[in-house]
Amino acid sequence: MSNSKGFTLWFTGLSGAGKSTLAQYLIPMFRDMNCNVECLDGDEVRENLSKGLGFSKEDRDTNIRRIGYVANMLSRNGVISITAAISPYASIRDEMREKCDAAFVEVYVEAPLEVVEARDTKGLYKKARAGIIKQFTGISDPYEEPKNAEITVHTGDQSIEESAQAVLDYLHAKGLIPAKEAQKA
Amino acid sequence: MSNSKGFTLWFTGLSGAGKSTLAQYLIPMFRDMNCNVECLDGDEVRENLSKGLGFSKEDRDTNIRRIGYVANMLSRNGVISITAAISPYASIRDEMREKCDAAFVEVYVEAPLEVVEARDTKGLYKKARAGIIKQFTGISDPYEEPKNAEITVHTGDQSIEESAQAVLDYLHAKGLIPAKEAQKA
Repeated sequence: MSNSKGFTLWFTGLSGAGKSTLAQYLIPMFRDMNCNVECLDGDEVRENLSKGLGFSKEDRDTNIRRIGYVANMLSRNGVISITAAISPYASIRDEMREKCDAAFVEVYVEAPLEVVEARDTKGLYKKARAGIIKQFTGISDPYEEPKNAEITVHTGDQSIEESAQAVLDYLHAKGLIPAKEAQKA
Repeated sequence: MSNSKGFTLWFTGLSGAGKSTLAQYLIPMFRDMNCNVECLDGDEVRENLSKGLGFSKEDRDTNIRRIGYVANMLSRNGVISITAAISPYASIRDEMREKCDAAFVEVYVEAPLEVVEARDTKGLYKKARAGIIKQFTGISDPYEEPKNAEITVHTGDQSIEESAQAVLDYLHAKGLIPAKEAQKA
């Protein structure tokens, strides 16, 4: 039995901003609250739902619509469904929000380009600067910052604990996850 | 709160055999039992997850893997996830069974080709016979009958009530849906 109401926690941000890291940090915390949770990670979804799609705006939108379709089915059935794809276009994020039957919580995982480029966790920025990877978000492809995200975390300044706490505080305040007392019971 | 344990109810059978009809008949019955339920219908999934894929074996397998990926996520989170695609190849059905974290119940929705062709609900068999639709299951593309389906229903002989009852009887017997007494409570 799940403790959770089900909602979509939609992370958006540059490659390397910490979307997946934050998701993986939160998942065991949600499980400890006896909530059902799934993470639709960008890389995993491209493998399982979107193989063959590229990085044109059209293909990116198709990829995001697939993620949104699955996230919606999960969240309307009581699952906390976390999405952790770059999702650079505001219009398609708004479309997913509109289509979501459960609560939709947009989390802007913000970090300055110079920070994520210095991190370059997967070595992708180097390849993008060298032109080996085309249409790379932030370098040769746009990233549209969210104007009305429910939560913004700044992973350049904040520790992961602080970023996670900001997410949890919002979800508690909205009654989307059990209060701390209930969690202990 | 859902009453259900979550499992995948994997329908397979020729086009027009009654997979979607049976699914749509069962869905409100599951809801009456206070179970969460979703249906991944062949046509809807092709629109939402598999646009651009054709009907070669490779593309069909990709389509089925996507359905299986989503069905698994739903069913392991307590949702009855019904799939209603033709899924003509035995090996890929077996692969989905292997990968499923929850119970996997294969339902062979059987009807003889002459029966479904005479029904021709969507006018597809006529087009397939005329060669307008290529690679049409049962006409110009293979359908591999399940050898070990948990349930087989014969929609050529049985009423939809009888087919649905056969499914419910199996699920009751396996404890996958609440007993009738519990449903009334």
